[in-house]
Amino acid sequence: MCGIFGVYSLSRENVAKKIYYGLFSLQHRGQEGAGIATSDSYNIYSYKNIGLVTEVFNDEILQNLIGYIGIGHVRYSTTGGKCLENCQPFVVKSSFGNIAIAHNGDLLNSEELRLELEKKGHIFTSSTDSEVIAQLLVRELLKTKDRVEAIQNTLKKLVGAYSLLIMFNDKIFAIRDPWGFKPLCLGRDEDNIYVSSEDCAINTLDAKFVRDLEPGEIVEIGEDINIYKIENEDIYNVELEGERVYKKAATCMFEYVYFARPDSTIDGISVYKVRKNIGRELAKEHPTDADIVSPIPDSGNTFALGYAEESKIPYYEGLMKNKYVGRTFILPSQNERELAVRLKLSPIRAVLENKRVVLVDDSIVRGTTSRRIVELVRKAGAKEVHLRIGCPKIISPCYYGIDMPTKKELIASNKDLESIRKEIGADSLGYVSLEGLIKAIGRKDLCLACLTGRYPTPIKFKKVKDY
Amino acid sequence: MCGIFGVYSLSRENVAKKIYYGLFSLQHRGQEGAGIATSDSYNIYSYKNIGLVTEVFNDEILQNLIGYIGIGHVRYSTTGGKCLENCQPFVVKSSFGNIAIAHNGDLLNSEELRLELEKKGHIFTSSTDSEVIAQLLVRELLKTKDRVEAIQNTLKKLVGAYSLLIMFNDKIFAIRDPWGFKPLCLGRDEDNIYVSSEDCAINTLDAKFVRDLEPGEIVEIGEDINIYKIENEDIYNVELEGERVYKKAATCMFEYVYFARPDSTIDGISVYKVRKNIGRELAKEHPTDADIVSPIPDSGNTFALGYAEESKIPYYEGLMKNKYVGRTFILPSQNERELAVRLKLSPIRAVLENKRVVLVDDSIVRGTTSRRIVELVRKAGAKEVHLRIGCPKIISPCYYGIDMPTKKELIASNKDLESIRKEIGADSLGYVSLEGLIKAIGRKDLCLACLTGRYPTPIKFKKVKDY
Amino acid sequence: MCGIFGVYSLSRENVAKKIYYGLFSLQHRGQEGAGIATSDSYNIYSYKNIGLVTEVFNDEILQNLIGYIGIGHVRYSTTGGKCLENCQPFVVKSSFGNIAIAHNGDLLNSEELRLELEKKGHIFTSSTDSEVIAQLLVRELLKTKDRVEAIQNTLKKLVGAYSLLIMFNDKIFAIRDPWGFKPLCLGRDEDNIYVSSEDCAINTLDAKFVRDLEPGEIVEIGEDINIYKIENEDIYNVELEGERVYKKAATCMFEYVYFARPDSTIDGISVYKVRKNIGRELAKEHPTDADIVSPIPDSGNTFALGYAEESKIPYYEGLMKNKYVGRTFILPSQNERELAVRLKLSPIRAVLENKRVVLVDDSIVRGTTSRRIVELVRKAGAKEVHLRIGCPKIISPCYYGIDMPTKKELIASNKDLESIRKEIGADSLGYVSLEGLIKAIGRKDLCLACLTGRYPTPIKFKKVKDY
Amino acid sequence: MCGIFGVYSLSRENVAKKIYYGLFSLQHRGQEGAGIATSDSYNIYSYKNIGLVTEVFNDEILQNLIGYIGIGHVRYSTTGGKCLENCQPFVVKSSFGNIAIAHNGDLLNSEELRLELEKKGHIFTSSTDSEVIAQLLVRELLKTKDRVEAIQNTLKKLVGAYSLLIMFNDKIFAIRDPWGFKPLCLGRDEDNIYVSSEDCAINTLDAKFVRDLEPGEIVEIGEDINIYKIENEDIYNVELEGERVYKKAATCMFEYVYFARPDSTIDGISVYKVRKNIGRELAKEHPTDADIVSPIPDSGNTFALGYAEESKIPYYEGLMKNKYVGRTFILPSQNERELAVRLKLSPIRAVLENKRVVLVDDSIVRGTTSRRIVELVRKAGAKEVHLRIGCPKIISPCYYGIDMPTKKELIASNKDLESIRKEIGADSLGYVSLEGLIKAIGRKDLCLACLTGRYPTPIKFKKVKDY
Repeated sequence: MCGIFGVYSLSRENVAKKIYYGLFSLQHRGQEGAGIATSDSYNIYSYKNIGLVTEVFNDEILQNLIGYIGIGHVRYSTTGGKCLENCQPFVVKSSFGNIAIAHNGDLLNSEELRLELEKKGHIFTSSTDSEVIAQLLVRELLKTKDRVEAIQNTLKKLVGAYSLLIMFNDKIFAIRDPWGFKPLCLGRDEDNIYVSSEDCAINTLDAKFVRDLEPGEIVEIGEDINIYKIENEDIYNVELEGERVYKKAATCMFEYVYFARPDSTIDGISVYKVRKNIGRELAKEHPTDADIVSPIPDSGNTFALGYAEESKIPYYEGLMKNKYVGRTFILPSQNERELAVRLKLSPIRAVLENKRVVLVDDSIVRGTTSRRIVELVRKAGAKEVHLRIGCPKIISPCYYGIDMPTKKELIASNKDLESIRKEIGADSLGYVSLEGLIKAIGRKDLCLACLTGRYPTPIKFKKVKDY
Repeated sequence: MCGIFGVYSLSRENVAKKIYYGLFSLQHRGQEGAGIATSDSYNIYSYKNIGLVTEVFNDEILQNLIGYIGIGHVRYSTTGGKCLENCQPFVVKSSFGNIAIAHNGDLLNSEELRLELEKKGHIFTSSTDSEVIAQLLVRELLKTKDRVEAIQNTLKKLVGAYSLLIMFNDKIFAIRDPWGFKPLCLGRDEDNIYVSSEDCAINTLDAKFVRDLEPGEIVEIGEDINIYKIENEDIYNVELEGERVYKKAATCMFEYVYFARPDSTIDGISVYKVRKNIGRELAKEHPTDADIVSPIPDSGNTFALGYAEESKIPYYEGLMKNKYVGRTFILPSQNERELAVRLKLSPIRAVLENKRVVLVDDSIVRGTTSRRIVELVRKAGAKEVHLRIGCPKIISPCYYGIDMPTKKELIASNKDLESIRKEIGADSLGYVSLEGLIKAIGRKDLCLACLTGRYPTPIKFKKVKDY
Repeated sequence: MCGIFGVYSLSRENVAKKIYYGLFSLQHRGQEGAGIATSDSYNIYSYKNIGLVTEVFNDEILQNLIGYIGIGHVRYSTTGGKCLENCQPFVVKSSFGNIAIAHNGDLLNSEELRLELEKKGHIFTSSTDSEVIAQLLVRELLKTKDRVEAIQNTLKKLVGAYSLLIMFNDKIFAIRDPWGFKPLCLGRDEDNIYVSSEDCAINTLDAKFVRDLEPGEIVEIGEDINIYKIENEDIYNVELEGERVYKKAATCMFEYVYFARPDSTIDGISVYKVRKNIGRELAKEHPTDADIVSPIPDSGNTFALGYAEESKIPYYEGLMKNKYVGRTFILPSQNERELAVRLKLSPIRAVLENKRVVLVDDSIVRGTTSRRIVELVRKAGAKEVHLRIGCPKIISPCYYGIDMPTKKELIASNKDLESIRKEIGADSLGYVSLEGLIKAIGRKDLCLACLTGRYPTPIKFKKVKDY
Repeated sequence: MCGIFGVYSLSRENVAKKIYYGLFSLQHRGQEGAGIATSDSYNIYSYKNIGLVTEVFNDEILQNLIGYIGIGHVRYSTTGGKCLENCQPFVVKSSFGNIAIAHNGDLLNSEELRLELEKKGHIFTSSTDSEVIAQLLVRELLKTKDRVEAIQNTLKKLVGAYSLLIMFNDKIFAIRDPWGFKPLCLGRDEDNIYVSSEDCAINTLDAKFVRDLEPGEIVEIGEDINIYKIENEDIYNVELEGERVYKKAATCMFEYVYFARPDSTIDGISVYKVRKNIGRELAKEHPTDADIVSPIPDSGNTFALGYAEESKIPYYEGLMKNKYVGRTFILPSQNERELAVRLKLSPIRAVLENKRVVLVDDSIVRGTTSRRIVELVRKAGAKEVHLRIGCPKIISPCYYGIDMPTKKELIASNKDLESIRKEIGADSLGYVSLEGLIKAIGRKDLCLACLTGRYPTPIKFKKVKDY
């Protein structure tokens, strides 16, 4: 995924610290690396490194990031290992001055674009999509001095998911791809204009949320704000190799279900409310005779509350999460995997003993963790364990930036419901239905590719990938 | 507070890693420092440092902690600043071999004991009670070769709170003071005997909880287990300076309300249940006409659930906690205190807007944070904010190991309810009553000194302290 | 300056550790950063960072640098501050596979080349010459599939100093510029072929020195070794803006005087012997009636030995160097500058007291340190202090990679000998003459630009620089 | 060994930074750990840790070390591994206020004293002699309020080497043992009184050397300075188990030969001059027909200069030392030991080739390094290698603080000269004679125990030690 955040200070104050707090509020979108680039309209200053926002930056580093314009990035590893080269913003020097790019999403045709550029003599120092975009953009700038036109021409070439911040010495361009895969929104206060992956970061800074970018929108942020569109009718209506391709927006449903922070609102819809609604749908679709509803914390909390509300079965915290698990934790050895789970999650016997428990979580990926938790809950005395999942079965890989295991590893891709239930060891198992999910979110222009196998863009580019 | 944990391996395996996981599960009891001392019956190996358990230890350090007997400690700063010298276990060389001591609690008469020892020519390298106990113990061992007798004679001199682990080369003695201020319990599995501040650590290691130590009990842990009592009728029934002194156990009520982990059971009573009960009591004592009940996370969660259950007002998560706040976080400047709160707690507008909100927390100390949170909730659209607190007003200092601000700083020590409400800015404010608290816990042998000003031990020793 | 080192293992062993030791032996050529890139003929693995070789690398990092071909670099800051981006080797992905480049020297026309490339749409992620060379090379590779031809065409464009290692997946190309500014030599043992800035690194690895690269030579290192020339008659004989431009080799005299390690031999001439000869020349040119000769350690040691030998005045160590001065040293405050010198250099009173002392050093740059040392020596009892300098007066900036202060700061650029002597406070002052220096080195094809202001290449490119 | 340094500021300025620079100048006396304790006459502030002075301290730590009185310590590992507990100054709280102790030397009877104290109920938290001295001192202070008397009574009990700084809240007592094993001297400037292991630290701070402490002297440093003697006729003239025990001072000859800095002066004798004299003695005792004299740097430098001067054979630097070898250096594997030597020492072929070389070093301990260096020099072309050693054969262990290998490991303890020569592979080998050494130092009251096996104190205490 990744998170991106930008600030333009109308009062010409340094913005690095605001970006630091913005990225901190977007930390849930990426924990692998963080970076900030700022501009004082003459030079670009940048710093990025592996680690959490609070680990990467300190006071001294922030003070050296001078400038009243700035963008930042938190990185979530989609491909390859941890690697400084792939941290962002990606900063380049060109004949059009310095350019910094921060990207959230995954391009489907980046390999193709990269090969084309290489054939023309371009070289690459990283494996990021940002570098591909930077090279394309500079080529377009050679053809036309109009920056907006150059950006538009560049974007026409991109297929896939991109919420993008492009910073020149004097301006930031904020862009959301025509499908609207990833969120991006604007905020402002008296002195600053903000752009952020989620409004939670804007709220944290006590600024006013202005609006979400519409799919296909380019917002030029400077003294004035100008709005442009990605003029690319082609990519809205492609029919390739007989695949059905959506014409309209296709926002990632996973943002609502798992990725975004519950206090965020995406395209006008509260993430918290969506999760509660899903819980209610689950209760309707998969009712149970049980004594308590308990979430698997923290991911299942809101879903469980919805389930409890609808089913009238009381909500209890049956498991506690250890908040001290960190990077330097010495993991138990291979044959102590159960201990690993218990170190992170503690069942409360006083709550679970002799109870029929509805356990609610957001999703099942491989199924191994779910199995261990069910076992833990039984060991703590639960008579029955009924697992309810707030996301339909994931059966297809995501090509737009969500890092999922290969098809083989996805428990739901090969097994029917009863087999999964057995493997996990629950007394009953229920996933929310696709219809239930759509109803709970309350919008239809969603990307549901990982649930249906139907992709909103052509995917021929990725065929080589071994899913 | 502090947490202590010990293991004796009957199968003579190294225990350092088990202690590491035990301390990790007790991390909530102290985040300032951590230490482990082990014995292979010939030597004592020890390591301690400032920081979290996961920061202090790594694989190499644990591997150097050889031995099948061991004790560990997590430190919570009661006095003075961070200081390596005051980390525990405290290890000494004496004519009776090596001795390691880990202590949870605060002695009232440690200064007196220290001065007496100094007058006899003893010197001190730390300001811990453990060192005082070690010196006393060695003196007693000079008088009698019987270790149990020496320990008993030592304990007779101590007034105050102490759950104590004393490790010799071949044995651990686990001790709980006659008042039973702090918890301490035993566990075991096929190969090991465990002693721990809370049973949550025993459960995490998948061992069986055996029982809580009774107040005044000394448990000798070796090949065999032997039980002794602290033979000290004097200290059970002291009448000093006209003060009323309890004869019976006086377990700290704060363990139930705030300190212990919710999945722990202290003296047979589930901490989770107590908190839920308190929530219910609050709802009975301070009912309100409201739309939602929301906790201040994480401390208020269970209280709020109880309140919701009793009041039938639906439970919502109105505030989200940022889990990435850590040690290296760059705090906002003085005049951005509000930002500091927002970085840690995010209100969910979709939940709070136009709602009458019952906000529930465990306690109010200074009142400043509560005021900022109430403000935050109002800003997010709440129409009314009713604050409910799961602990009666704190009006007196604790002398037994809970680090509280001085009387002046305690908002409840000088102000009446209405003044506090105004200062905090809530529409209504309700503390659980003393009776409600006792009823919720379900036992009467509690230390309620900080709520009543009546102390279960003489406190003349502490008079100098400027509370 | 910088140092470069490469290994090709004929027996297909991993070479990273050999490069580590090679770079360690070249550490004196650059202390700001270090990097290694290796190839297993399929992939390039690389790691670089700010710091000394021993700080940058550890066992784990070296083990991840897989491959039987590899190059390394130690960086000396020529321009700008410390910056990870500018560390080398510079690694790029291109349509011709991965390419890694390590560069020692400074191109005069890199800005021009960079601008040209930018105009063609190329972008830059660093400010290194290596990136410029990489981009040029890839463009040439588009034109001809012949790698040697492409390299030759690239080199034709470069004006300035470059000893260069270019690693492809399967080969290393070692290159020395037509002027031979910087040294570069070949070594080998049974299993490996080496290329190194100085032969000291080859000797350390117990390999055999083969020979120095000749100016203008390209050596292709693989299973076989092939030799090519830089076919560029133009750049050997340029006459630009009336400037006189050398046709022949122009090896940097500073390598002999200061930069190279004394146990190295450059172009067949022992660095140690040169320094000793200079000392002797100094004694002939600037004889003195004195009691002892003492070096300013360590830079002046060998010069002083030569002076002593020629003059028959006994050699003493009058000053001791503190070897514990490191990166984390807390410097005395501004008004304790004298203390700063004394912490690094200690005069031996027993040696200096009542003596007429000839103090010998390699060079004077700003003059401030020399002044403090003379003062120190006087304070320790010296009756007279005669300063002798093993390098003629530096009066012009270096454009080929030696980082010198601007002309204003060079004490010798504005002052005559007597003024300098007064400022430094010596009783007499003598620089070796240009003729003496040339005689001592024993070759005439030297670059003496910083001493004479006559540059072996056109320097129009650098005019903007404010020297 | 260890180094100690103290400052008393008459102008009541903070002294921590001065101690930092003092310890930095004494770093050669101990690289394992460092510590500083200061007093503002009310409290003692202290900090110590494993590592070099520059690694242990930073600006913040120094600023927290408040006070106008202070002492510091650099630790050299005599016994056991690296261990924070054993770092000094050792700081204790007692009924006589806080006391900090810094100790250079090794007590012979510390085990006995420790056992006696343990029998009286004292406990120990470290294995330092300082803690033994602290406990004894506090016991004596109980008997007499007179601090000087208490110190005198304490010192009477100590057998062995001790230069000692004892800091009370208001004063420092500087003490040198009756044998004068280790150096200790006084300095002052306008505002401060200094006490230091060596005068080099006093000179560095630009203070005036006052005088060495005499053996058996106690100097009380406060507003006034008072001098007392260790009144202990017994220990000056002990006859135990028929052993001959010296009555007079016995200063460690190794201080002159190896340990002290060459710019220091101990008991009025310049260390530099001693080394030069030894070199001359060596030339007289072991003349050779050779072409050059070369030191093994840095330890052999001054010896070699003396040898060259006396023999008229020219002095050359035949080996260069790599100054970048540090803590984090990745050592070559076991079968690359030769590489390890070459990484640290580089032979200069231009100097050594075809030469008959006199190689001079300070001492031979195990002989393995010497063998490798001789080999290195031969490989670099030397025709003959004649090894000359500035210290007589070491045949007995040191009980006074010099960490030597066990007797078995000492090459000279079992082998005759010819066997050693063969093992090392030199063409000839010469040690300076005992008489030559004494003559070179110019004093007879030396401890020569490691050379003769005759100890200036009874050594029955140490019998258990397996030498």
